[in-house]
Amino acid sequence: MSNGIIHSNGNGVPAKSSGPVIPVASRLKDGRALAEDVWSIYNVANLPADCINLGQGYMNFAPPAWVKKAADEALEDVSANHYSHPKGRMRLRKAIKNQYGPLLNRDLDVESEILVTSGANEGMYSVFTAFLNDGDEVIMFEPFFDQYLPSIVFNSGKCVYVPLHPPSESKEGATSNDWTIDLEEVRRAITPRTRMIIVNTPHNPVGKVFTREELEGIAALAKEFNFLVLSDEVYDCLVYDGKEHVRIATFPDMWERTISVYSAGKSFAATGWRVGWLIGPKTLIAPTLAACTRIVFCSNSPLQEAVAGGLEQVKTRHFFETQVKEYEERRDILCAAFDKLGMKYALPQGSYFVLLDISEVVWPDDYNFPKSLDGRGRDFKACWFIAMEVGVSSIPVSEFYCAEHCSIGERFARFAFCKDNETLKKASERLQNLGKYLRKTE
Amino acid sequence: MSNGIIHSNGNGVPAKSSGPVIPVASRLKDGRALAEDVWSIYNVANLPADCINLGQGYMNFAPPAWVKKAADEALEDVSANHYSHPKGRMRLRKAIKNQYGPLLNRDLDVESEILVTSGANEGMYSVFTAFLNDGDEVIMFEPFFDQYLPSIVFNSGKCVYVPLHPPSESKEGATSNDWTIDLEEVRRAITPRTRMIIVNTPHNPVGKVFTREELEGIAALAKEFNFLVLSDEVYDCLVYDGKEHVRIATFPDMWERTISVYSAGKSFAATGWRVGWLIGPKTLIAPTLAACTRIVFCSNSPLQEAVAGGLEQVKTRHFFETQVKEYEERRDILCAAFDKLGMKYALPQGSYFVLLDISEVVWPDDYNFPKSLDGRGRDFKACWFIAMEVGVSSIPVSEFYCAEHCSIGERFARFAFCKDNETLKKASERLQNLGKYLRKTE
Ligand SMILES: Cc1ncc(COP(=O)(O)O)c(C=O)c1O
Ligand SMILES: Cc1ncc(COP(=O)(O)O)c(C=O)c1O
Repeated sequence: MSNGIIHSNGNGVPAKSSGPVIPVASRLKDGRALAEDVWSIYNVANLPADCINLGQGYMNFAPPAWVKKAADEALEDVSANHYSHPKGRMRLRKAIKNQYGPLLNRDLDVESEILVTSGANEGMYSVFTAFLNDGDEVIMFEPFFDQYLPSIVFNSGKCVYVPLHPPSESKEGATSNDWTIDLEEVRRAITPRTRMIIVNTPHNPVGKVFTREELEGIAALAKEFNFLVLSDEVYDCLVYDGKEHVRIATFPDMWERTISVYSAGKSFAATGWRVGWLIGPKTLIAPTLAACTRIVFCSNSPLQEAVAGGLEQVKTRHFFETQVKEYEERRDILCAAFDKLGMKYALPQGSYFVLLDISEVVWPDDYNFPKSLDGRGRDFKACWFIAMEVGVSSIPVSEFYCAEHCSIGERFARFAFCKDNETLKKASERLQNLGKYLRKTE
Repeated sequence: MSNGIIHSNGNGVPAKSSGPVIPVASRLKDGRALAEDVWSIYNVANLPADCINLGQGYMNFAPPAWVKKAADEALEDVSANHYSHPKGRMRLRKAIKNQYGPLLNRDLDVESEILVTSGANEGMYSVFTAFLNDGDEVIMFEPFFDQYLPSIVFNSGKCVYVPLHPPSESKEGATSNDWTIDLEEVRRAITPRTRMIIVNTPHNPVGKVFTREELEGIAALAKEFNFLVLSDEVYDCLVYDGKEHVRIATFPDMWERTISVYSAGKSFAATGWRVGWLIGPKTLIAPTLAACTRIVFCSNSPLQEAVAGGLEQVKTRHFFETQVKEYEERRDILCAAFDKLGMKYALPQGSYFVLLDISEVVWPDDYNFPKSLDGRGRDFKACWFIAMEVGVSSIPVSEFYCAEHCSIGERFARFAFCKDNETLKKASERLQNLGKYLRKTE
């Protein structure tokens, strides 16, 4: 995600307690929520002032001017400054219906099958609130978007992890689809308490776009064992090289058990607008709406109108097609730098992240790392070292694994390429300085 | 609050189930969340087309132009379109510090004592997530803002109710402060599981501004039994007749156990912007931040900037002083209509609601009420009848009571006066038609 959360003393109790002791809820202790997280450690405040930030997943460019214009117009309208219906503003729900109906092969009902949320994040949180009872299990693939874990734990659920398998030895010319799933491992992870699986495609941080076959395998298990699929497709507009983004909700008998998740932040380069939406059958959307209504009541109104204006125009402007080309160019600038270094990575087919294999990066034995990295994976050190010595920040991937599996992630650093070309070129130049810290392999 | 939530079939299971059955979490069944709520029944869609809506608590006028201008400016800034720090944007935290520091007699620390939330609603939800364990009790006064109940239940807490006592017989010339609390009743409500009390001042729906003595009594109990005070002060800028808004966080030894809650929606007539903030000690804000970060990640950025711009200018523009006078005028227009009718109410000293005593309103025995009112209090019928026959909608107050106590609320209808003078004058004229439906008392 983006910025760091607070440095906490661990349990909400003042260090030198003289005042009252108000204990925090135990769900916070279970949910990794009070630990110092990766975003705090790699916060710009801790890094060299001129470090180029490829760590955090937000753009350094603005949303399109014509979408911002729709925001300006909304601010001029009285009702667009006041509470929206908790389902979302009608104009936006209609725009979503028109854009996504054809993609999902359905005539979507704006009253019962679409829910606007305060970002994809809050939408998924509402799903967990609506469907998880104490100890219900949610299967997710590792590495995983870091918010899933605490969001599930806060709603008394239990996370169950199934790894994505990296290409062996990071073979050259690998793409993100060389990260594979093993359906037998998914099956073995299923128990009578399995309530849900999260499928994130295109995937953060791997960039993998799940294939039809993979999704069919997952769908078959969801039907066999009757659980819900939370299909996190926030990067659905960012799929490269003509690859197809397959929507699991369109598979036979899957509509009834799938909630698909989208984000205007990712689609329109407006991560700070906090507008997302869920699409699914009434039976799943109604309880999620009930949860969402209590959590936030409704999403902010002016930017809902703006996103509606955006979606209304994407077709005539060929916006998503153009945007994909721009992102391909950004990706290619960054990956060319890795090629030039002879470093290995899996070319992402979607999202705006690339995982670089950092196992060859070496640093002096006596290199001075901050205390906050003690006990963390090798990747935490590598990312720190690269930021300090080369001036480009990235995020260690072991953070996207549960404690038991984090050694798999240690081999990688995540670089975000949702930055303008100039920034990426400058980063690429700097990255060449990494050459002298690479272990020579024959 | 405002719009209605969805009509649900009660448990998220399709009526004619042919598809899969994905059961909803039990917390939804406990939290009144799937029942048809008052906002759905009195939704504009169900009322006569030209009905004047004094039911729902949002303005029919816009936020000030100079605050909207700050929003326009923010949209032009790249970073103000992207993720904010989960604590809130620094400019807004500084503006809050400058505005609220003096009011709370503290040099507020922008890093640890202020948290920007997605409306006051989500802020309070985060507090419940951060501090409630299974079965922990939260005391609140009835009538209560309807979101408290499900928000607490969703976070596995238990609501404990203490009534505000209406002026006996609705005596003439009563003010909202004739609604009183009985501190002995509060004390009796305390158990070893009491974790928190919610104090809402100025109060929705009563309009009561709690006195210093009342708050001192509550503070003494909070200290004696070591619980947290959630001080919902979203109407702190709407206090009338020179009455003082007292902040419980300023009392001796209360800072450490109080979280104060504010809302830009109420302060700047921008309920749809979804920007609120919490102020409290680091020990309480840090866990709440941890919860809030997982629930929404951060609040929308452009409107945070706009609110910062607003707060920065309120002093030189004397905005809050002017706004209070405008609301006093609105209140007086509406209350004059009740006076003319000879109907009783308690003049609100704060917020933008007034409770009208509707016990004298009578309707024909064979009047045709919709099915949705079956089994609801007398006030549900009265509000329906008034909306249909007079063309002014209001909200039945029994909805703001727990099931056991709702007969207290049946005597009242809540009218919102956050509407422009013209609308209120028109409503006042229409309300005179109520005269012929009043029981004559000698
Ligand atoms: C996989 C994934 N899902 C969800 C989100 C959250 O999206 P939003 O900003 O709309 O809350 C992100 C953001 O980084 C993400 O990477
Ligand atoms: C007493 C009270 N608290 C909180 C809120 C919620 O405020 P916000 O719109 O900032 O979420 C309301 C809104 O009606 C309210 O009346």
